[in-house]
Amino acid sequence: MSQETNLTPMRIQADPLDRPNVSQAVIRRLPRYFRYLRELIRQGKMRVSSGELSEMMNVTASQIRQDLNCFGGFGQQGYGYNVNYLYARICELLGVSAGLRTVIIGAGDLGRALVRSPMFEKRGVDIVAMFDVAPELIGKSVGDVVIRDMKTLDQFCTEVPVDLAVLTLPKESVMEVSEQLVKNGIRGLWNFTGRELDFPEDQVAVENVHLGDSLMILGYRVCQIKEKK
Amino acid sequence: MSQETNLTPMRIQADPLDRPNVSQAVIRRLPRYFRYLRELIRQGKMRVSSGELSEMMNVTASQIRQDLNCFGGFGQQGYGYNVNYLYARICELLGVSAGLRTVIIGAGDLGRALVRSPMFEKRGVDIVAMFDVAPELIGKSVGDVVIRDMKTLDQFCTEVPVDLAVLTLPKESVMEVSEQLVKNGIRGLWNFTGRELDFPEDQVAVENVHLGDSLMILGYRVCQIKEKK
Repeated sequence: MSQETNLTPMRIQADPLDRPNVSQAVIRRLPRYFRYLRELIRQGKMRVSSGELSEMMNVTASQIRQDLNCFGGFGQQGYGYNVNYLYARICELLGVSAGLRTVIIGAGDLGRALVRSPMFEKRGVDIVAMFDVAPELIGKSVGDVVIRDMKTLDQFCTEVPVDLAVLTLPKESVMEVSEQLVKNGIRGLWNFTGRELDFPEDQVAVENVHLGDSLMILGYRVCQIKEKK
Repeated sequence: MSQETNLTPMRIQADPLDRPNVSQAVIRRLPRYFRYLRELIRQGKMRVSSGELSEMMNVTASQIRQDLNCFGGFGQQGYGYNVNYLYARICELLGVSAGLRTVIIGAGDLGRALVRSPMFEKRGVDIVAMFDVAPELIGKSVGDVVIRDMKTLDQFCTEVPVDLAVLTLPKESVMEVSEQLVKNGIRGLWNFTGRELDFPEDQVAVENVHLGDSLMILGYRVCQIKEKK
C-alpha cells in the first residue's frame, strides 16, 4: 500500500468502476465523505473505523456502513476502512478523476468569483472558457480563463468537448441558453440563476444553487434564537 | 383583503407571530414556498390550491397541507390559500420583515459578488458593513458598502446592532473570527469557508454553504449519464 499522503487520488486497480443507481440521498452525502477523508489524509491517517467517521461527521456508524456498502465493500470487519482507498474510490465515483470540462456562462461578479476560486481545480474540473454577451468584457481574461463572445459558443463546443456549464447569467436568458448548451452536448448544468430548469433527469443533470434559500433559513433560525432570549 | 400585487409583504393583523419548533426539514422547505408565492404574486394570482402548488413545486398536495399547517391554518377547505396572506406570513416566519442586519467578513471576490447581488435586499437583510484585514482594501467601497478594518469590528458592533455575519474569509481564521462575532452578539453565521463551526444550536445559528459539494454531485450525475449512453 502506498504511503503517500498527498491529495491526488491513487489509481485504483480493483474492480471496474461501478456507479450504481443509488438513492439521491446517498449521493448527496458523498461529498461530505470526500471532505472528511481529505482531512484524514492531511492528518496522515491510514485507517478509519465507521465509529470514528461517525463521530467526526455526526451521523450514525450504521448509516456510514450502509452508505459505503452501496458502492461495494470498502471496509473489513474489525479493521476499518483504508483511508486512501476509500478517498480514491469516492473521488472516482464523484467524477474527480474523470477529467470533466466546464464553461462558465456569464462573466459577472459571481461568474468571476467562481473562476478565481480553487474549487474547480480541487475537484478535478477544468474551466475551459467563460462566455458573455457584453462587448466590454469579451476578450478580457479572468485569471487565465478568456471571456469569449456568446455568439462563438456553438463553434467552441465543436472544437472542445464540454461536459458542464456554470450558469451565472441573468435568469431571463437561462432557458434559451440552456437549450443551446444541451444541443451542444453539455450534460450537466450548475444553475445559479434561481430559475428552475426542466430537462429529463436521465439526459441532463441540473444542480440548482439557491443561495437565497440558505440566507432565509438562517434568518428563520436567528429570529427564533432572538425570541427565546 | 388588499388587492396589491407588489412584492412588499402586507402587514399581518392576525395572530401574533408564532415561530414554532417545527422540524428542520419543514423549515428548509419554506424558502421554496417563498419563491413560488412570489412568482404567483407577480402573475397577479390571488388564490392557490394545495393541488396547484403541488404541481408547480413537484411535491404532494398532502405534504404542502402538512407543512403549512405547522404554522397555523392558512387555508380554507375547498377555497385554497390566499396568496398575499400566505406570502406575508412566510416572509414573517423567515425574518424578511424583521429588519435583520448583516456584516460581511472578507472583501475578496466572493464577498464582493455577494454584496453586489440583490439577494439580501430581496430578503429584507440590510448589509451594514464589510470587514477585511488587507490595508489596500480598507476604506474602499463595494456598491455603497464601505470596507472597514477588522480591528474596528468590536467598536462597530457596539454602535450598530448586528444580527448576522457572512463569512467569506480564509478558513484558517474562521474559528477565531466566529468567536469574536458571537461575543459581539451576532447570532447567525452564514459560512462559506468550508470549515465546519461548532456552536450550541440554541445560541448561534450556522448555515454552511458547501458549493463544492453541489459541484461534485453534478459530476457524479454527469458521469452516470455519460456511462449510460
